[in-house]
Amino acid sequence: QIQSDRLWGAILETAEIGGTPKGGVRRLTLSEEDRIVRDWFRKACEDAGCTVTVDALGNMFALRPGRDPSKAAIGLGSHLDTQPTGGKFDGILGTLAALEVLRTLNDAGIETDAPLCVANWTNEEGSRYAPAMMGSAAYAGDFTVENILARRDGEGITVGEALKTIGYDGPDAVGTQKFGAFVELHIEQGPLLEAEAKTIGVVEHGQGIIWYDGRITGFESHAGTTPMPLRRDALATFSEIVLAVERIARELGPNAVGTVGEVTIANPSRNVIPGEVSFTCEFRSSDSDTLKALGETFAAAVKDIGSHRPRVEIDLEIVWRKEPTHFDPKIISAVREATEALGYSNRPMVSGAGHDACNLNQIMPAAMIFVPCKDGVSHNELEDATQADCAAGANVLLHTVLALAGV
Amino acid sequence: QIQSDRLWGAILETAEIGGTPKGGVRRLTLSEEDRIVRDWFRKACEDAGCTVTVDALGNMFALRPGRDPSKAAIGLGSHLDTQPTGGKFDGILGTLAALEVLRTLNDAGIETDAPLCVANWTNEEGSRYAPAMMGSAAYAGDFTVENILARRDGEGITVGEALKTIGYDGPDAVGTQKFGAFVELHIEQGPLLEAEAKTIGVVEHGQGIIWYDGRITGFESHAGTTPMPLRRDALATFSEIVLAVERIARELGPNAVGTVGEVTIANPSRNVIPGEVSFTCEFRSSDSDTLKALGETFAAAVKDIGSHRPRVEIDLEIVWRKEPTHFDPKIISAVREATEALGYSNRPMVSGAGHDACNLNQIMPAAMIFVPCKDGVSHNELEDATQADCAAGANVLLHTVLALAGV
Ligand SMILES: NC(=O)NCCC(=O)O
Ligand SMILES: NC(=O)NCCC(=O)O
Repeated sequence: QIQSDRLWGAILETAEIGGTPKGGVRRLTLSEEDRIVRDWFRKACEDAGCTVTVDALGNMFALRPGRDPSKAAIGLGSHLDTQPTGGKFDGILGTLAALEVLRTLNDAGIETDAPLCVANWTNEEGSRYAPAMMGSAAYAGDFTVENILARRDGEGITVGEALKTIGYDGPDAVGTQKFGAFVELHIEQGPLLEAEAKTIGVVEHGQGIIWYDGRITGFESHAGTTPMPLRRDALATFSEIVLAVERIARELGPNAVGTVGEVTIANPSRNVIPGEVSFTCEFRSSDSDTLKALGETFAAAVKDIGSHRPRVEIDLEIVWRKEPTHFDPKIISAVREATEALGYSNRPMVSGAGHDACNLNQIMPAAMIFVPCKDGVSHNELEDATQADCAAGANVLLHTVLALAGV
Repeated sequence: QIQSDRLWGAILETAEIGGTPKGGVRRLTLSEEDRIVRDWFRKACEDAGCTVTVDALGNMFALRPGRDPSKAAIGLGSHLDTQPTGGKFDGILGTLAALEVLRTLNDAGIETDAPLCVANWTNEEGSRYAPAMMGSAAYAGDFTVENILARRDGEGITVGEALKTIGYDGPDAVGTQKFGAFVELHIEQGPLLEAEAKTIGVVEHGQGIIWYDGRITGFESHAGTTPMPLRRDALATFSEIVLAVERIARELGPNAVGTVGEVTIANPSRNVIPGEVSFTCEFRSSDSDTLKALGETFAAAVKDIGSHRPRVEIDLEIVWRKEPTHFDPKIISAVREATEALGYSNRPMVSGAGHDACNLNQIMPAAMIFVPCKDGVSHNELEDATQADCAAGANVLLHTVLALAGV
């Protein structure tokens, strides 16, 4: 059994780093706050007897040697970055519970056969830089390291520059640290476990995702003097796209969601018809046929909107596409067995959010453990989870990892 | 006859102050660029023999004495501020043509009976601070000076602070400089004169305007895990409002326009459903019944949108409302007579844009002179007008003013 109070204390302690007035956390990837929590995490892992290495994308690995050095490390962990107005559990629970697993094994003097390796992956949130789960995506070979290092945030700062600024442009090549399997604990970020009063979600699948960047070019002109029929209004065109995204996701649901999360008018002024609008949008489904249909229906809808607004141009670029994840049956079983052995109520689950484990599952056996969060709310400062559920999840993580690593 | 080259030279010279790569001007009210052009204007007026005074809102007045000091000054002028991506004629033509009128009279040694007073009104554009035509609105008594001084821009800087920063918090009480009448020359900012190949618009009416500030409050949540039916999406709600504004203006047209010019998501992130959106919007009509109907239909539409999105709150505030303007028949006649005497083709017009003269017309006889602009484009860096049309407008201004002031 892990120490519930120690885990909870670590969550509350790190929540101060970038803490917001409403009890959430603002700790964008590769920011100064991210540096501080990374330093904290490195020291905590070293104090727990681990060797900490950092790769060229800032992914951090804390290695606890095993009895059998020929065995591949069993990986656990998650991420410590947050949304602009995020909570104190998303990613953080999985990373600090992994640290708590190490501390518990140290206290009990338990040595595992295979080494254990706690990971903190860079830019899981995808808010400052696209794509989400960036560090693990490069690790899994979806993008080259050069490609990722050159990506820019809204202010034009590249990933490479941001890594240097906080001193986490590590010396190791991405992929140096190898794993035999990976297990990630996370809050559900959805409402099902709470609604059914279950403690543990045994995650079997993850949704596929398409991310778009869009730009609409009309023509800036005077709001008072330009007659309605002569307008080339980029914002009205954008509004049709937003409602199309919502309608398509509803029509192709229930196994589908679609969201427009960002919009910027180039030179906004109240009495100027917007001439240039940029935006982001996304679709998700756990079913790959549905994901395909979402993408195709959306492309057709955008074409249709463009055709009845002929003097406005719509450019749409897919910046990321990930097929649905099907986690490894062996690791899923290990999670289920640990959960049952500990006597926790549970149910199989599909993850609505993307996770580093989804990327890692492409190149190694992986699975995930979910615990409930209040009202299913996440990506919000009000995100919440109980100490008991967090501890339950950490215990399942401990026993899953022990089973996989061998004692 | 005014000196066309001198007027054109002044337009090109001041266009450098805040000049943009595409040939436009970015000279937001009370910015450093505004200070520079104000200093330029003050010196040019003083060099033309005027006394320049500044009131508490930064409105500038260059007085050229008349033969009969008991007569009220005849006012002419416009504004020197621009939109964020504005042109080099909107407001500027009217102010610099007024300066050119003074220079022409000096060259010809002409003294008028009534004094002449060239005005440069503060914040005509309304882009940095609402409302538009702010300086003349306070002058006309629509707002108290204290109310205006306390207004804040997007960065929280008050009008009072901005005036102090550029040194144009003048010593005179607003209203100190009196006028017997006011004449404003301006580019049309619409397509009619050009389409009909007319040189001069004799402006008889101005549109009424309603400006709104809106805020939509939903709930931030995870784009991947929040099912469509559970969403409280502030941006989708906003999009319905944008399309309602467009639809209502079309339906109540042709004598109506409606525009959403600004939108901001509070904490934008691609994978977060927007929880808080703020925006501005406006309606205009030259017919006061239509303006009323626009406001009422819009209020009903917003209520309807709110009722089928019950867990999203829409707050709408009218921040400015101005009834349609009907310019003074005597000054309209003076403009028409000067135009006819000079042999320019002309037509009566309704102004689609708001102008300082519309405010001034509430407390003194006023009217306006329009000249064509290319493709009717304004509030755009590509705004353009010919040297010949600008000179024609300045000549009409000269002769109108001479008729009103007496020689
Ligand atoms: N777990 C999580 O919220 N990840 C962020 C990436 C995404 O699913 O949008
Ligand atoms: N003339 C002009 O463009 N004024 C700005 C105020 C407005 O009409 O929106």
